[in-house]
Amino acid sequence: MSNASKILVAQGGGPTAVINQSLAGLVKEARKFPAIARVYGAFHGVRGIVNEDFVDLTAETSANLEAVAATPSAALGSTRDKPDLKYCQEIFKSVKAHGIGAFFYIGGNDSSDTVRIVSEEAAKENYPLRCIHIPKTIDNDLMVNDHTPGFPSAARFVAQAFAGANLDNRALPGVYLGVVMGRHAGFLTAAAALGKKFPDDGPHLIYLPERVFDFDRFLSDVKGVMDKHGRCVIAVSEGVGDAEHTPIAAKLATHVEKDPHGNVELGGGALADLLTKLIKDKLGLKRVRGDTFGYVQRSFLGCVSDVDQREAREVGEKAVQFAMWEGRDGSVTIHRTGNYAAGYQLTDLKEIAAKTKVMPDAFIAPSGNGVTEAFHGYLAPLLGSDMPEAARLAAARVKKILKG
Amino acid sequence: MSNASKILVAQGGGPTAVINQSLAGLVKEARKFPAIARVYGAFHGVRGIVNEDFVDLTAETSANLEAVAATPSAALGSTRDKPDLKYCQEIFKSVKAHGIGAFFYIGGNDSSDTVRIVSEEAAKENYPLRCIHIPKTIDNDLMVNDHTPGFPSAARFVAQAFAGANLDNRALPGVYLGVVMGRHAGFLTAAAALGKKFPDDGPHLIYLPERVFDFDRFLSDVKGVMDKHGRCVIAVSEGVGDAEHTPIAAKLATHVEKDPHGNVELGGGALADLLTKLIKDKLGLKRVRGDTFGYVQRSFLGCVSDVDQREAREVGEKAVQFAMWEGRDGSVTIHRTGNYAAGYQLTDLKEIAAKTKVMPDAFIAPSGNGVTEAFHGYLAPLLGSDMPEAARLAAARVKKILKG
Repeated sequence: MSNASKILVAQGGGPTAVINQSLAGLVKEARKFPAIARVYGAFHGVRGIVNEDFVDLTAETSANLEAVAATPSAALGSTRDKPDLKYCQEIFKSVKAHGIGAFFYIGGNDSSDTVRIVSEEAAKENYPLRCIHIPKTIDNDLMVNDHTPGFPSAARFVAQAFAGANLDNRALPGVYLGVVMGRHAGFLTAAAALGKKFPDDGPHLIYLPERVFDFDRFLSDVKGVMDKHGRCVIAVSEGVGDAEHTPIAAKLATHVEKDPHGNVELGGGALADLLTKLIKDKLGLKRVRGDTFGYVQRSFLGCVSDVDQREAREVGEKAVQFAMWEGRDGSVTIHRTGNYAAGYQLTDLKEIAAKTKVMPDAFIAPSGNGVTEAFHGYLAPLLGSDMPEAARLAAARVKKILKG
Repeated sequence: MSNASKILVAQGGGPTAVINQSLAGLVKEARKFPAIARVYGAFHGVRGIVNEDFVDLTAETSANLEAVAATPSAALGSTRDKPDLKYCQEIFKSVKAHGIGAFFYIGGNDSSDTVRIVSEEAAKENYPLRCIHIPKTIDNDLMVNDHTPGFPSAARFVAQAFAGANLDNRALPGVYLGVVMGRHAGFLTAAAALGKKFPDDGPHLIYLPERVFDFDRFLSDVKGVMDKHGRCVIAVSEGVGDAEHTPIAAKLATHVEKDPHGNVELGGGALADLLTKLIKDKLGLKRVRGDTFGYVQRSFLGCVSDVDQREAREVGEKAVQFAMWEGRDGSVTIHRTGNYAAGYQLTDLKEIAAKTKVMPDAFIAPSGNGVTEAFHGYLAPLLGSDMPEAARLAAARVKKILKG
């Protein structure tokens, strides 16, 4: 790697519980290389590069780096900006002026596409800039990767939230519906299933964007569960859509708002409100409650998987090693080895950039409203140590006297 | 206490993270009294008494009681039923038939009113039934009590959620608004303030049902924070209302649904969606997000205050002791002694039943959109050990070269 005396790191896209682990892993690893004199961080992703909003992370104390690593969200700030050619030229100007030899971008598939463009433009301009993408996304939708840092902690939150919602619903029976993030991939919604312990525990129904959402089928499913259990807990992905893959939430939105990547904003409570109203009206049920999990599922302070923490740390470390030793640009990818261990590789950016992985059929129940044992086996080891667990009274029944 | 060979416990109202601690405390304490031969539990509150849906808790293993104690929600099930005279007579029939000498009801102000009615009807009928109310509510709105079991754990969830939302908002600046439970009392919404650490941390604005919600003032507040910080985090109680105390959420509801206590259901995402749309339309801001915390704030599996756990356990224990030694009915109340310790008393049911405590003026900032240091001092010791804390990069700025 040439011109490596200064390296630059930035964070892009939606924050996660462990994105700062990757930052800390990178900074601490970089400091071990004598060839690296300075580690710069850019505030708010690529925008910070253009604006020269740099901080010198070489000056951070190790204790503070560890404290930041344990803090969710993106300590350097993030951005939804998607650079075009002109934007990239501005990036080069800044990078050249500061003598930066390597650029590390921690983010999801949109961010990896930014790395790809920057890498290609650098090559065109014959500017020696090593470009490495470090994976991060709660959506778990990056190609090649077994899973992505940030997903296990968000999955743990969703599993714990549904375990609690199931207990609440068991105490006060009715229908409970929770809408979970996930525009195209249902992994995070599917994680709701990991909150189940007893055979009659919810979520009893799980709806994923990988399957067409049919209102009649949905109502029939809910009625079936109510008839069987007298209560019903449902997990719905915000991305569920019709046969044309148009998300229902997008159809409901009065303001159709798009981010710079062309993604329609699916937030707000409209989907949950629509579905709970539908159940009340069509099935004549009274106690029907809907929640939209919102930002708390990706940013809650105090719910994290230690497996996720470790791997997020490691992809940051490996990124520096790959940059120094591999002589090529790429994306750090996570691969499952054994049950359970993880290994890391440097993968060509084109295999990751702007592509989306969805749930494989083997993880989705044939009914289309649940997940398989294979999915449980896939996710369980990622959730980390000390998962809290619900208990029930053994509840020896007393013989009725008046109505016996 | 006469006829105490069998005692009966039930749980009422909305579940909490620690209501099962009170159940376990009561059962374990009762087993120490030789005079108490059996501890019955009724499924789903007073409804379970009428239906003779009893379990024999004397037969629960201690290990399982401890596991249940650590589980949120109501292990016996709950109910929103509010007994009238006829309902009470059904209760007596069942209680008499099973030879029950003491009735313990774990619940909020509606449940305490149920205990009062049952106590009064028992006296009228000259039936010797000891009636004790055990406090529980995340709303923290019981009179006489310094605070109520369940509130500290829910407050911890809200504080951690807003600490995370603040980090997320700092990474991707804009407006974030979270709607928190609390129909009449703002304590739980106010708890959002305990997630703040650095001076510019959110929530920057907190709106409580104790103050009239004015839309113009709200928009002006948000604009002021945006001008100062370039971002804004807002906590809003679901119960905020106009000068006539009509909740805005109730006005928005297309289906006005009331529970048996006459409370209008304030759930759903309508309030958050209304307020975020207002900010977008009137202030011309783009990145405006709103979440409704919903059931997760009271039932999340894995967020609990150890102070709350201990106190919830103790009110269950004290209830049995008061029943056996005090010779009168009442409600167990929590009183603050020192900084911080708690003591317990038996208070007349009339002082608690169907009354609502709201935030004292000393806890509400004069501006009406925040809380005071006194509130921080009140709540901080209740949140328990090991509150997670956010960290920031020290972030030594690099001198700009091109734009310097």
